Amino acid sequence: MNLQVLAVEGLGEITPGTDLAGAIAEATTGVLADGDVVVVTQKIVSKAENRLVEVDPDDPLSHKPLVVEESKRVLRRRGDLIISETHHGFVCANAGIDLSNVERGQAALLPIDSDRSARRIKDGLFGKAGVEVAVIVSDTFGRPWRRGLTDIAIGCAGIVPIADLRGSTDTYGRELQVTEVCIVDELAGAADLVMGKATGVPVAIVKGADPAWFGRGQVVPDVIRTAEEDLFR
Amino acid sequence: MNLQVLAVEGLGEITPGTDLAGAIAEATTGVLADGDVVVVTQKIVSKAENRLVEVDPDDPLSHKPLVVEESKRVLRRRGDLIISETHHGFVCANAGIDLSNVERGQAALLPIDSDRSARRIKDGLFGKAGVEVAVIVSDTFGRPWRRGLTDIAIGCAGIVPIADLRGSTDTYGRELQVTEVCIVDELAGAADLVMGKATGVPVAIVKGADPAWFGRGQVVPDVIRTAEEDLFR
Repeated sequence: MNLQVLAVEGLGEITPGTDLAGAIAEATTGVLADGDVVVVTQKIVSKAENRLVEVDPDDPLSHKPLVVEESKRVLRRRGDLIISETHHGFVCANAGIDLSNVERGQAALLPIDSDRSARRIKDGLFGKAGVEVAVIVSDTFGRPWRRGLTDIAIGCAGIVPIADLRGSTDTYGRELQVTEVCIVDELAGAADLVMGKATGVPVAIVKGADPAWFGRGQVVPDVIRTAEEDLFR
Repeated sequence: MNLQVLAVEGLGEITPGTDLAGAIAEATTGVLADGDVVVVTQKIVSKAENRLVEVDPDDPLSHKPLVVEESKRVLRRRGDLIISETHHGFVCANAGIDLSNVERGQAALLPIDSDRSARRIKDGLFGKAGVEVAVIVSDTFGRPWRRGLTDIAIGCAGIVPIADLRGSTDTYGRELQVTEVCIVDELAGAADLVMGKATGVPVAIVKGADPAWFGRGQVVPDVIRTAEEDLFR
């Protein structure tokens, strides 16, 4: 099995109200096909959905009250850094609020319902380009134990987020006990490799996806661990 | 920028003492080229390095004393699950000890020095095939907050594990504050997508890597957060 990960160039400026599916369909004409996975970064989803708020451009901490507003609870603070659980249930820095790649004086909040955002783009791509694809909305999060950030999925549509290999057998014919692979996170990370962070490419296409990945599923109910289930909250 | 992720088939059985670089060079003749990233799963590295130990095949818990031996400290226990910090500093379930894809009655421990394992494969591939590649040794770990496992890097050679974008500017010309992307983890995850878990493909090649990724670096000193630095230990 082989995968290809392609950066989508030439998307143009995304502003509140931009028809994101239409813009992606146009930028990927002749490239996007049935069975592809389209990874869209949260930033342009938040912009298209007008999740932008005003902040004081001269005060680097002016978005901090928003972090608390966007959070269910704060888990850790160190200096200016706040790690919290958002209302969706994501555990991340600053409630996912982002000041980079938006205009000065603005901050971008996470989409209200990122699985629904993914669904809307998926349906829009079918409407505009006639293609049946899976869609992942990705964002850049830190994690405990390890330095550096990786892109993970905050929303998805048309794809089963966790490939459940329980009950499969390994190459020795022994039943694999628990191997639930979070393919949407691995796909989001793969997409990030071609998007970079400062190059302004906010969409990538993955070709060669395993047909078994396609199906129903959402990130928030399927991937987020509940606090009760989590050993570190 | 585009990436291609290729599964390497036909590697043959890896046993203690197998020349892993030689086996990979042979299986990738005509495919492997300068500037590729080779991702090798921990399991075959541990086998080639004879990190196999005997366990009672009729007692599913017989490897548990090994988990404690292989750990610096145990962080959490729930039922049979132990989350610990290994002597390397990795935080993972069961100290990374694995019973799948090894022979019945055996368990595979993590390599003693997984960065050195990666270095050895890199040097071996240069010797056998004359190619300058980066090498990542990957393993499958769970994580807090999110369900499902993803592959991450436990060792690397010839690649800078964390691409430091601090000081770059975003598309609005504003300096990006902290964007350190853990590219080795994103590459390990991308490789896992083509390897699957039960298909017995333990090596993948990533083509199209950004030349800026290549350089010096190791996972253990560069990626593992110290306990003092970590907000959740």
